[in-house]
Amino acid sequence: MLSENDYKKLSAPGSVALVGVTSRVGKGSNNPLEVLLEWGYQGKIYPVNPKGGSILGHRAYTSVLDIPEVPDSAVICAPRDAVPKLFSDCAAKGIKLVSITAQGFFDGDDKGILMQEEILNIASERGIRILGPNTLGVVNNLDGYCTSFMRFINPTSAVGILCQSGVFVVGASQICTGIGLLIDTGNTSDIEFSDLLGHFARDPRLKVINMHMESLRNGQKFMRAARDAAALKPVVIFKTGSSPAGSVAASSHTGSLAGEDKVFDTAFKQCGLLRVGDTEELNDLNKIFSTFNGINGNRVGVISISGGAAIMAVDACSRYGLELATLSKPTMDLMGEMFPEWAHCGNPVDMWPASMFHGYHYTYSRILNALLADPQVDSVICITCSFLEKERDFLDATEIIRDAAAANPGKPIVAWTYGGRFEEYAREFEKENNVVYYYSLDRAARALSGLYKYHHLIKKKDIQPVSLPANPGQVIVEKILAGKTGNLAQTDAFRILESYGIPVARWEMAENIDEAVSHAEKIGYPVSIKVSSPDIIHKSDAGGVRLNIGGAQQLKDAYQEMLQDINNKRPGAKIDGMVIQEYLRGGTELLLGCKKDSQFGPVLAFGAGGVFTEIFKDISLRIPPLSREEIIEMIEETKVSQILAGARGAQKANIEVLINCLISLSQLVLANPSISEMDINPILAYPDRVVALDARIALESSH
Amino acid sequence: MLSENDYKKLSAPGSVALVGVTSRVGKGSNNPLEVLLEWGYQGKIYPVNPKGGSILGHRAYTSVLDIPEVPDSAVICAPRDAVPKLFSDCAAKGIKLVSITAQGFFDGDDKGILMQEEILNIASERGIRILGPNTLGVVNNLDGYCTSFMRFINPTSAVGILCQSGVFVVGASQICTGIGLLIDTGNTSDIEFSDLLGHFARDPRLKVINMHMESLRNGQKFMRAARDAAALKPVVIFKTGSSPAGSVAASSHTGSLAGEDKVFDTAFKQCGLLRVGDTEELNDLNKIFSTFNGINGNRVGVISISGGAAIMAVDACSRYGLELATLSKPTMDLMGEMFPEWAHCGNPVDMWPASMFHGYHYTYSRILNALLADPQVDSVICITCSFLEKERDFLDATEIIRDAAAANPGKPIVAWTYGGRFEEYAREFEKENNVVYYYSLDRAARALSGLYKYHHLIKKKDIQPVSLPANPGQVIVEKILAGKTGNLAQTDAFRILESYGIPVARWEMAENIDEAVSHAEKIGYPVSIKVSSPDIIHKSDAGGVRLNIGGAQQLKDAYQEMLQDINNKRPGAKIDGMVIQEYLRGGTELLLGCKKDSQFGPVLAFGAGGVFTEIFKDISLRIPPLSREEIIEMIEETKVSQILAGARGAQKANIEVLINCLISLSQLVLANPSISEMDINPILAYPDRVVALDARIALESSH
Repeated sequence: MLSENDYKKLSAPGSVALVGVTSRVGKGSNNPLEVLLEWGYQGKIYPVNPKGGSILGHRAYTSVLDIPEVPDSAVICAPRDAVPKLFSDCAAKGIKLVSITAQGFFDGDDKGILMQEEILNIASERGIRILGPNTLGVVNNLDGYCTSFMRFINPTSAVGILCQSGVFVVGASQICTGIGLLIDTGNTSDIEFSDLLGHFARDPRLKVINMHMESLRNGQKFMRAARDAAALKPVVIFKTGSSPAGSVAASSHTGSLAGEDKVFDTAFKQCGLLRVGDTEELNDLNKIFSTFNGINGNRVGVISISGGAAIMAVDACSRYGLELATLSKPTMDLMGEMFPEWAHCGNPVDMWPASMFHGYHYTYSRILNALLADPQVDSVICITCSFLEKERDFLDATEIIRDAAAANPGKPIVAWTYGGRFEEYAREFEKENNVVYYYSLDRAARALSGLYKYHHLIKKKDIQPVSLPANPGQVIVEKILAGKTGNLAQTDAFRILESYGIPVARWEMAENIDEAVSHAEKIGYPVSIKVSSPDIIHKSDAGGVRLNIGGAQQLKDAYQEMLQDINNKRPGAKIDGMVIQEYLRGGTELLLGCKKDSQFGPVLAFGAGGVFTEIFKDISLRIPPLSREEIIEMIEETKVSQILAGARGAQKANIEVLINCLISLSQLVLANPSISEMDINPILAYPDRVVALDARIALESSH
Repeated sequence: MLSENDYKKLSAPGSVALVGVTSRVGKGSNNPLEVLLEWGYQGKIYPVNPKGGSILGHRAYTSVLDIPEVPDSAVICAPRDAVPKLFSDCAAKGIKLVSITAQGFFDGDDKGILMQEEILNIASERGIRILGPNTLGVVNNLDGYCTSFMRFINPTSAVGILCQSGVFVVGASQICTGIGLLIDTGNTSDIEFSDLLGHFARDPRLKVINMHMESLRNGQKFMRAARDAAALKPVVIFKTGSSPAGSVAASSHTGSLAGEDKVFDTAFKQCGLLRVGDTEELNDLNKIFSTFNGINGNRVGVISISGGAAIMAVDACSRYGLELATLSKPTMDLMGEMFPEWAHCGNPVDMWPASMFHGYHYTYSRILNALLADPQVDSVICITCSFLEKERDFLDATEIIRDAAAANPGKPIVAWTYGGRFEEYAREFEKENNVVYYYSLDRAARALSGLYKYHHLIKKKDIQPVSLPANPGQVIVEKILAGKTGNLAQTDAFRILESYGIPVARWEMAENIDEAVSHAEKIGYPVSIKVSSPDIIHKSDAGGVRLNIGGAQQLKDAYQEMLQDINNKRPGAKIDGMVIQEYLRGGTELLLGCKKDSQFGPVLAFGAGGVFTEIFKDISLRIPPLSREEIIEMIEETKVSQILAGARGAQKANIEVLINCLISLSQLVLANPSISEMDINPILAYPDRVVALDARIALESSH
């Protein structure tokens, strides 16, 4: 996290130098001084322009060095090639917080990369913090400060925004409902989200935090900051660049499943962030979090002027995991009184038939207030119409709904209205900030579900980082790993698992046929034979696997045959021997794996194993360290867990030992960062035990 | 389909009686005569009101019978209890087309149901067609006719709308972009969508058809009409009531997977309908289909003022299966000239760096026109900003984009703009109906994808109904089924499969131990034993299955043991004997099944079998009859088909015989409507053959 002092200099400095500011003003001039003045900035402003003179009534200094004090902050708003010199001047002046607006550094050519590295070196020597480059900087509507060179329509809201692109700055009124405090980290060469999240989370003026993330440097640091922030207030993240185009093709099963975006998704979920898929969903969540401080539960009441629309609301609630409230007796009794005899009453309430007898406004008000008074209702979706010009409209219920909301602040009301005047009615609904309008019932239910999710599934859960004890097997593992790189021999992989308490089907290494027979007798038939060779990764493809061998003669024949087979398919491969292994039947085939992610470090994988791994992709991911509860969640997230739990007459598997295996695996990969990839597939789950049949461990090539 | 004559009477009658019309007029009067006059109706109007007199300058008749001619059409707009008498009068008068507005019939109590049945009986005797009850009727903006008693803001568009709720009538301007011709079938007691679709599809004034469906009476009839319509123009369907709340719990594996909504979904897909999930998606598709007549392919060019927004567009395209166009050399060359050296050029085009050198408008126009001229680009997503008041905006590109669209009508342009003035800019974009604006990039890509899907995957494909030849096995099957109801014995089920050419693992029925041994010897060990009893459906649960029996003694012991076991678990169950069956190893476990749907008739199921059926729900459904191509699609839709195709080193299964089995299954269930449910699970697929191990057939209880 940025120090309090640096954060102040960044977000609301007492003085700021606008270095390289243009002397042009007015339409199209993109003059940050003009914008800063419009924001009503109260601190001291020092424009710097080589020509000197005066800009908008402010004296312009020809160099930063001429400024009579050391400003809290500098914004370098000159073209790229001028930046290194201007930055050196800022450093020489002793300025500790510098924003750089220009493009063309890490996002540009080799020259740009060199310039940025040079700047970062100076910054590191002098203890200067940098925002950007390629940033519109800071927009602080709460304290009146803005570094953007672009003007824009800028309503103030209670939203804190961290972003990496100007689209979120100038588009914030549309995308985020406005700005409380926004920081655009641009190329994010130094100051990053994890430096800022904690400050936003602790600013009582902000009710919800938004992140627009394109990339990330330090996943673990980010996760710590995100967990901390999400415990304090709702954090909504829009991660872009989620399509697979840019992601490197992974080299193993787990890898290809743990596509980069799925890892981000896992990290966000583990931290309690709410991830959205587009700008509208972001806006929708900002509205509901800015308006309501909580929600009692997920039981929704629906009141509608149209039966057809009420059905849409029910579908939408069901889609987002909300429950249709079962109305209590007083509510049902009231409806029984008000509705004609032929009508079916219940939730959703199609209030139209009752309104024929009691008048529209009276009926809407009575029933809505009954729903809000009902202890079995946690929130209400109001459906009204807006198909007439205001002056001709005899069905306007916006005021009734606002009044009901004012009288029942503990129960969120969201509204949808249909008809040609919906935009006008939308504004009417939100006039007193106690009702939120949505453009569709789908979006209304989705937003309600987000509100529920944050307050009941995220905030109430104590998402704390876990620390795992050392595993006693680590001493042995270190010996095995010492000096090795690349793919480990299977026997080493087996020994590592065993050291960490992950059971492996009984095995012995045989260097010749006689040893093979004597090992098989010790293990007991049936057995399998698997070639052990540093040159062969895919043993089956090389003819290096024989399963279910029932006796000594069969074993001898198979051994002989395999040697020939391998010699034909992989001539010259170095053969260390053959692994003779207990052959097991039955059980549920699982996969336990791990792949090191460039941002987040080791990522664990659990799911359906064997031939189905790639087909059904029934894999859950988690970034360790993990609590026992998180491991249980990880297991339960998969479909195959239903079989482990005894679905369809299957025998229940021993989940406890499976959990222990996952804990061991996470200890193993955290304690041994040279492990870049692991696959234990299949590992078989039985009612009494869990047993690995095959394992592959790859180490980083240079370590 | 409704006859041309009846359709005319319904949609644009030469004369209409408004039966039971109120004499009140003005705000809140809900007077359909007032609305009809506003619509500029040119035909004759006959108001009918028991008080007589004059309404809005039109003579009111005290009875329909007094009208001097037989009107083409009558709209009964009186309260429920008055309807039967008024309907009788219409019938007596000889009116052949009647709309009924009131609620409370099939949607009400027993009295309402009786009244509706009475009306339907009269209609059926007299050849009267009924629209409704519970309908706002017809809105015809193309010919100036409207039966709604509610006024509403009503822009004319090229959209034909079929709906079952007033929300689509009065809300059409918001939900559907307006109305060309709308028919609300309400309770749909007589006239239904399949009566109307063909007329809409052949009306050249309509460019796209919308359906809002809550329920359906005759699925097969609907499918025929829908296939026909979708071949002529895009048909977009919003099916509501899709949540599982109301659906009956199904009794077998296939049943529970073939949840009602999934069957609707299957039917829509088979007919080439585009299904949407909410009202906004409907609106989005209407806009694109109303604006563009086609699209050459799915290769998208993106031009953006913001690099950050361009990335969002790429994500959105990828989400909806659109490809990012690879730009041709001339386009790349142009960008090479225009961009600063440090910039990375390509698609998406972040045009901002180039605009610093060449001016914003020139740059946007040059690059957009280059994209449109590029033969490797089929459509363009334009991203612009709208973050300033129009008078201060120096970055307005709407005119440039509209001009480019006008010059390139064959390449759809969709636009997104960000900033506080986006609503104003949205209108600017659409001013000349050659560009479509979307509220988010996600929606822009989704709509483009819908346009592509209709023109390339639906319209080009010849979706024709298939008729299947009779299967020679039918004679035997009829004998087996004769007089039976409920669950068939397994032996009967096996015989039925074999009669239709679906192979079953070799089996024999044994009535005692000696027979069992002699059968097993004939079949060859290993074998399985399965109890045959009309009282036992779930054989495993009753101890009625033994697998993998290797020899005679083991068989005898197992037989004995099973009898005891069953006697303990199901005392008194009638045991016909034991099925001795070939025990097979390996192969891929599949499920073939069928369940009769109340709307659509038999629905075939194919997918992963065995223990994974319920867990992975990897099942595809189709409503027969099916072409060979449709069956291949059905197979390829599942994940397990990847294993059949040889994924992960699996041996390729014989797909041809699998296809033949599915054809046989569809012949079987179509030819024998008494079959209500079938499960062949597992059926094993091998490289050379497909073999059923187990089968269950249930017949309708009363037939």
